[in-house]
Amino acid sequence: MKSLPTPTSDLEVARNAAIQPIDDIAAKAGIPTAALEHYGRYKAKIDTAKLLPNPGKPAGKVVLVTAMSPTPAGEGKSTCTVGLADSLGRSGRNVMIALREPSLGPILGMKGGATGGGYSQVLPMEDINLHFTGDFHAVTSANNALMALVDNHIYQGNQLNIDPRRITFKRVLDMNDRALREVVIGLGGPTQGTPRQDGFDITVASEIMAVFCLASDLQDLKHRLAKITFGYTFDRKPVTVGDLGVEGALTLLLRDAIKPNLVQSIAGTPALVHGGPFANIAHGCNSVIATSTARQLADIVVTEAGFGADLGAEKFMDIKARYADVAPAAVVIVATIRALKMHGGVAKTELQKSDPAALESGVANLRRHVHNVEKFGIVPVVAINRFATDTEEELDWLLAWCAAEGIEAAVADVWGQGGGGSGGDELAAKVLTALAGPQSFRHLYPLELSVEEKIRTIVQEIYGADGVDFSVPALRRLAEIEANGWGGLPVCMAKTQYSFSDDPAILGAPKGFTVHVRDLITKTGAGFIVALTGTVMTMPGLPKEPAAMRMDVDDEGGAVGLF
Amino acid sequence: MKSLPTPTSDLEVARNAAIQPIDDIAAKAGIPTAALEHYGRYKAKIDTAKLLPNPGKPAGKVVLVTAMSPTPAGEGKSTCTVGLADSLGRSGRNVMIALREPSLGPILGMKGGATGGGYSQVLPMEDINLHFTGDFHAVTSANNALMALVDNHIYQGNQLNIDPRRITFKRVLDMNDRALREVVIGLGGPTQGTPRQDGFDITVASEIMAVFCLASDLQDLKHRLAKITFGYTFDRKPVTVGDLGVEGALTLLLRDAIKPNLVQSIAGTPALVHGGPFANIAHGCNSVIATSTARQLADIVVTEAGFGADLGAEKFMDIKARYADVAPAAVVIVATIRALKMHGGVAKTELQKSDPAALESGVANLRRHVHNVEKFGIVPVVAINRFATDTEEELDWLLAWCAAEGIEAAVADVWGQGGGGSGGDELAAKVLTALAGPQSFRHLYPLELSVEEKIRTIVQEIYGADGVDFSVPALRRLAEIEANGWGGLPVCMAKTQYSFSDDPAILGAPKGFTVHVRDLITKTGAGFIVALTGTVMTMPGLPKEPAAMRMDVDDEGGAVGLF
Repeated sequence: MKSLPTPTSDLEVARNAAIQPIDDIAAKAGIPTAALEHYGRYKAKIDTAKLLPNPGKPAGKVVLVTAMSPTPAGEGKSTCTVGLADSLGRSGRNVMIALREPSLGPILGMKGGATGGGYSQVLPMEDINLHFTGDFHAVTSANNALMALVDNHIYQGNQLNIDPRRITFKRVLDMNDRALREVVIGLGGPTQGTPRQDGFDITVASEIMAVFCLASDLQDLKHRLAKITFGYTFDRKPVTVGDLGVEGALTLLLRDAIKPNLVQSIAGTPALVHGGPFANIAHGCNSVIATSTARQLADIVVTEAGFGADLGAEKFMDIKARYADVAPAAVVIVATIRALKMHGGVAKTELQKSDPAALESGVANLRRHVHNVEKFGIVPVVAINRFATDTEEELDWLLAWCAAEGIEAAVADVWGQGGGGSGGDELAAKVLTALAGPQSFRHLYPLELSVEEKIRTIVQEIYGADGVDFSVPALRRLAEIEANGWGGLPVCMAKTQYSFSDDPAILGAPKGFTVHVRDLITKTGAGFIVALTGTVMTMPGLPKEPAAMRMDVDDEGGAVGLF
Repeated sequence: MKSLPTPTSDLEVARNAAIQPIDDIAAKAGIPTAALEHYGRYKAKIDTAKLLPNPGKPAGKVVLVTAMSPTPAGEGKSTCTVGLADSLGRSGRNVMIALREPSLGPILGMKGGATGGGYSQVLPMEDINLHFTGDFHAVTSANNALMALVDNHIYQGNQLNIDPRRITFKRVLDMNDRALREVVIGLGGPTQGTPRQDGFDITVASEIMAVFCLASDLQDLKHRLAKITFGYTFDRKPVTVGDLGVEGALTLLLRDAIKPNLVQSIAGTPALVHGGPFANIAHGCNSVIATSTARQLADIVVTEAGFGADLGAEKFMDIKARYADVAPAAVVIVATIRALKMHGGVAKTELQKSDPAALESGVANLRRHVHNVEKFGIVPVVAINRFATDTEEELDWLLAWCAAEGIEAAVADVWGQGGGGSGGDELAAKVLTALAGPQSFRHLYPLELSVEEKIRTIVQEIYGADGVDFSVPALRRLAEIEANGWGGLPVCMAKTQYSFSDDPAILGAPKGFTVHVRDLITKTGAGFIVALTGTVMTMPGLPKEPAAMRMDVDDEGGAVGLF
């Protein structure tokens, strides 16, 4: 097998890739032309009502790609998702990818791009990383239309008796804009509105994004939008979008966005890239509609969940799996040599040096994630995502450790040898073996548990904490939740992704700690209760040298500076 | 000729219209398939670099549709633009329409839709009135990226010495959101930014929208973006986007939006609907790129300018015509019986009653607009846009008056008998006669005049005022403009559209008044100086019963409540 040249930049690899017309990808995926709404030559939305029924075909099996506790640079979940799917396609399987859409704000800030890397990317990366098909803009519009309508309602007489001090919903922008975190609006006198303290979140943190990603169809979307609680009355009763009567307008603003987006990997694997809720105050998975559509079309669907397995996988299993009615058939945990060394105590600046001894103390983090996934009734496969700086000595040590622990593992060089290369073949073979095994998926907790007990279960079973304590406001919130009849919802933990604990500095597999819940937010439209631990940033800032400073267009209008 | 059924709602007419695949419309317009980027079946962006050169073809003649001073409901400029173009097409001419894109904010507020009316609409109206191809979202993103980068620059050390109290650029949303007019941002302590007084405009008021609409190509767009002044240093020097070094990133965010959007009228006339700057603090015309592309493809291009002729037409002649290097070959002034009666003193609630006597005192408004257009070297044609409530008596009186005044006029029933019907044929015949006549277009003023003299010329020659006075801040601004070397730019008047004066209550053709300029804003990227008179609203509010309350989706995802 001929080796591919080492990727220099993701943008360059993407631009040199042989991209196929989206009609060809659709044909490969079994999507009739009548169901396609083209957005240029290489993107299309799918009108799912026009897909051909195929009653004899069982729904595709879902492979969830998650990760160990990551380094700040990320461990390559999207890259492994794409690379694994490509290798499954190489082995003759009918496979589709389901991924989240990137958020524009971080792309202008730190990241440059978020569509996989090296030879395992989805295309056209320039478009997907910029406005794509406008879905996030539609979510932004719907969110901000709601808030303009709320403030207008108050201004026009406030028939619903909304307390301006108790509005829990914010405006959003898909932008990293620190200065909008805390603002005062409605200034300028009686003709300009009612002054109140407010703030902006980034669009991916909007409950409308979470609703968008958990809705099963357009009518369910409308139903969920109506259930969103945006604030409370002066007598502390929740006020919903349905009370305001604008769920129809919000649904209208989302009616095209809700159709999943078809694109392709460098290897030509069909990919649905759709939706992208935050992984902290939301569940961090692509849309239910995209996952369901992919299952309808393909035999195997490879998808991912945000952050490490303690957050992303747990939320996939306890939130998305419930609302999408899907049981994952296999789980892949992405691990990297550099993340294991970081958990073994190596400083971030030293991670590129070979250090098998540090690996030995860092593997405890991976071990806990593996055993956690087993608690959902699934034996995971570990994908060791190869980096150019990894040494054979380190990789051999890690493979031997996995074998000794009875953990299925494979080195995946999907960044350097993906895109139709053999870099993911061994991983794909292990995943196929896992898919062929017996299935005994279960949720971590029953919905009948109290909210407090659900949180305690996650914290003890998944994080390995001794217990949980609740702040005074959180305790008050727990009582309100039960009083409002919201106690039967699943829980969405907002916790740092860098540690099993709520302190990002505590690496490895810590014991003897308590998780502190400082507040709870009920997302009645999305259908979960967010438990806030530590500092949760819902509007990121830009760094000193934003990626935007390096961005440009070339003479042909091509993107420059998207990495 | 069989009459068409009377339109009940624009949405219903649009939905029942026989829409053609956009490839067929493109073929009719001479656009090769390779230049099309589809957005669904009925919309496409045009990659203008891929249009076939046709060196033998002269550039199409431009027909500008403008209006008398309107009623708050508008006099149907877009409807007449579409209807006139359709009738020119019926007569065998190779014609294209160039229109502005509607803004989402007002659609959710008052208007419901802004794509023409009755049988003279552009399709698909549901899409064009909602997110369309995402152009306005791209402008919003570019504008807000700039402001996030500006506030981040200040936060990260403020190397450019920007005075946070002298930032003249605002964030924008395409939303009618009163509560965002005056805000304080950057609260929350030292890690959240620098507190400052701020506000949001609606997206169409962004200078980036004006730049977008005046740029001749992607490189000119970047060049103009770099020239935008967003604020001043502590020592009062202007700071530009180029100083910050982010024009490349902003251009990248606009690289797809800048391609003009191809759609069609109900009669199948190709239409470019692209860009939409405010008609008060900006020039109120569709993009230069769309107009140039239409002229390249068609023999006649029918386009419009916002507000009445005192604003829209004057700005077209003195701003857009200069930057687009286009001389309009004919001008149509849309007049309505109801607007003439309003200018004749009839109360808004009584406008539906026949009242020829009121017409007689109202025509002075129309007469001044006609003579104003003649000052640009063009003899206009008056289109009497027929409403269902107009009586024959009123129409006959108006036609007789026009004949006596030597004004070319035709009744146009393009709302009720457009879309391939004969309602615009007489108007089209008069426009063709005008196009065949001698051309002697001239700008109203030379750029060499001082800013003060340019303003005085517009105010005296077009508005009929005795003169202009400047507030103390405006006088200071005039001195700054000359000191900064901006004095050679054309002027963009921000004035009420309802009166020739700066007081919306003074109707008809007033005399003996003075226009008060209270401030001036230099848009160094767009390339004009805005003179602010009266109250200029750059962020509209929602009414007591917003149109959004009636919006919904039907079971097939179709729009409900877009009028």
